[in-house]
Amino acid sequence: MRLLEKALADIKSVDADITEEARVRVDSLIKPQGSLGDLEEIYVQLAGITGELHPDVSDKAIIVMAGDHRVIEEGVATSGHDITKIQAVNMTRGVTAVCALAKQSRADVVVVDVGIIEDVDNDKLIHRKVKYGADNFTKGPAMTYEEAIQAIEVGIEIAHKEIDNGKRLLGTGEMGIGNTTPSAAIVSVITGCSPEEATGVGANLPMERLKNKINVIANGIELNKPDASDGVDVLAKVGGLEIGGMAGVMIGGASKGVPVVVDGFISMAAALIACTIEPKVKHYIIASHFSMEKGAKIASDYLSLKTPLNLGMRLGEGTGAAIMFNVIEASCYMNDHMLTFSEAGFIVD
Amino acid sequence: MRLLEKALADIKSVDADITEEARVRVDSLIKPQGSLGDLEEIYVQLAGITGELHPDVSDKAIIVMAGDHRVIEEGVATSGHDITKIQAVNMTRGVTAVCALAKQSRADVVVVDVGIIEDVDNDKLIHRKVKYGADNFTKGPAMTYEEAIQAIEVGIEIAHKEIDNGKRLLGTGEMGIGNTTPSAAIVSVITGCSPEEATGVGANLPMERLKNKINVIANGIELNKPDASDGVDVLAKVGGLEIGGMAGVMIGGASKGVPVVVDGFISMAAALIACTIEPKVKHYIIASHFSMEKGAKIASDYLSLKTPLNLGMRLGEGTGAAIMFNVIEASCYMNDHMLTFSEAGFIVD
Repeated sequence: MRLLEKALADIKSVDADITEEARVRVDSLIKPQGSLGDLEEIYVQLAGITGELHPDVSDKAIIVMAGDHRVIEEGVATSGHDITKIQAVNMTRGVTAVCALAKQSRADVVVVDVGIIEDVDNDKLIHRKVKYGADNFTKGPAMTYEEAIQAIEVGIEIAHKEIDNGKRLLGTGEMGIGNTTPSAAIVSVITGCSPEEATGVGANLPMERLKNKINVIANGIELNKPDASDGVDVLAKVGGLEIGGMAGVMIGGASKGVPVVVDGFISMAAALIACTIEPKVKHYIIASHFSMEKGAKIASDYLSLKTPLNLGMRLGEGTGAAIMFNVIEASCYMNDHMLTFSEAGFIVD
Repeated sequence: MRLLEKALADIKSVDADITEEARVRVDSLIKPQGSLGDLEEIYVQLAGITGELHPDVSDKAIIVMAGDHRVIEEGVATSGHDITKIQAVNMTRGVTAVCALAKQSRADVVVVDVGIIEDVDNDKLIHRKVKYGADNFTKGPAMTYEEAIQAIEVGIEIAHKEIDNGKRLLGTGEMGIGNTTPSAAIVSVITGCSPEEATGVGANLPMERLKNKINVIANGIELNKPDASDGVDVLAKVGGLEIGGMAGVMIGGASKGVPVVVDGFISMAAALIACTIEPKVKHYIIASHFSMEKGAKIASDYLSLKTPLNLGMRLGEGTGAAIMFNVIEASCYMNDHMLTFSEAGFIVD
């Protein structure tokens, strides 16, 4: 059995008994019932995922998948491929946005080359290149079906390795110039919305070039005819290698009972792929921020994922996930450090 | 000159030169301009407040003001006065929600009795009782004008003390059974919205009792006729002692160039009082979460304060401020740990 099949077979439903116990416990803490909102929901979800009434998710990592997109030949991005490589290396140096924010939330950052268009000579990068950049999907599929599975399996492998090293909470991040284009294509195909609805300006694309970006996406979908019910097919036809890697991180986390925090638009597209492959993955996902990139809300609504951080962010890299780690940690502190009514000596009628 | 006058006289405008320098700096970091949204805005605000390009606000405290409200005689709350005292004591024991969340964000919690209805024998509580509970404002003013100033001055004094002890970021919190009622009254008077628009269910008041709560607020405003242009008068007529204390914390922070994070609905009502007394206070305020309590949005919109955390919370105590401390710290990490384009060796056209 290959890694993807095995991981999918290992995904269990969350523990219904512990979920119920956690709900009773959170309602017994000294506060009006429900008044801590999402902190309560996140804690209950963590309990169900981990099977523990006092889950400890303090050891955590953001897995950044890097890959290129030959579709930028079509003029859909403001930067060139060189920036993907430069920023992937900068991530290994700890100097990009996600690195700064992960330091604050005390998370490791792991950077994986799953599809950078050239070789990168850097020993801090994890080298798992499936292909030198996704192909231009206006001329054919972005990758083969087999390559799509390989990209997903890179994510599963790295997630498993981090979990084996003790990590109990993972976040997804990415670096890939042009990757709002395949993400918008994925959102359009899987949710059924139009390319116009799914497509935004990414990293400050001038508005006058937005129409072209929409056409590129529409043409790519028209040409490749992805099967919306087959997540691997959608990924292969109009996706990206790092998007596959992130979907793999979600599947890998779910297969070992570890929650995965999804970041913004690109991560949401990866979540659509992962949840189309296996809907149970969704129960292991915690969303983070409301990305300003158009299409992000369509994806999170489709998955019924709430995005509680409304910080006007649209950078990617895993920056929203890094901030969300604090909120998730806060939900555990709520559970671990508040007393229950009976512990506090309240007489409850 | 009394403390309130002196503190108001000490509030400076934020530093325009550093604000501009900070804006240039944040735009030079290796990310698309504007893509970190509120993190960028918060950093620029902190720089302007502190006059530092690398503000350090890691030493921080939540000041919890506790006070009672005799207006609960009118049936506007589900708990009795005893809960204010019990929870204030529980806060000194570190076992309530705000204590748990402040542990996560590495903040101290300071608890002040500014108006609990009975004496509290607890040496961890800071005893600054102005009055044994605010009076029932359906029968007359909640307190005298002089008492309102004293409550504000308690907040200024405690804020100054914390700042003198090294704190560089303050948050406001409260404990006071019934305090959504005076808060709704304040929001109605200062913003000009109706009592219906300002009044929510607080700590799970049954919906069938909401109409009575609205009537109580409308009657209190009608009887006392607060002067909406005089923050002290509004506080005295329909406010609360802990609300005055929180307004004082904001004025005290602003007077020493220290930012203050406001929590939810009650804190927003206090911010309305503080900013009505001195509009410059607003520049020192950072909002935190979008409270689910009806009326909170009216208050934050009136002050043009953005509430980026949309966590479905409605507990108060300072819980939203405690979580927001993480986001503020993240904005400093962004500034301190990301490279600029030139530092990273990018060739910028």
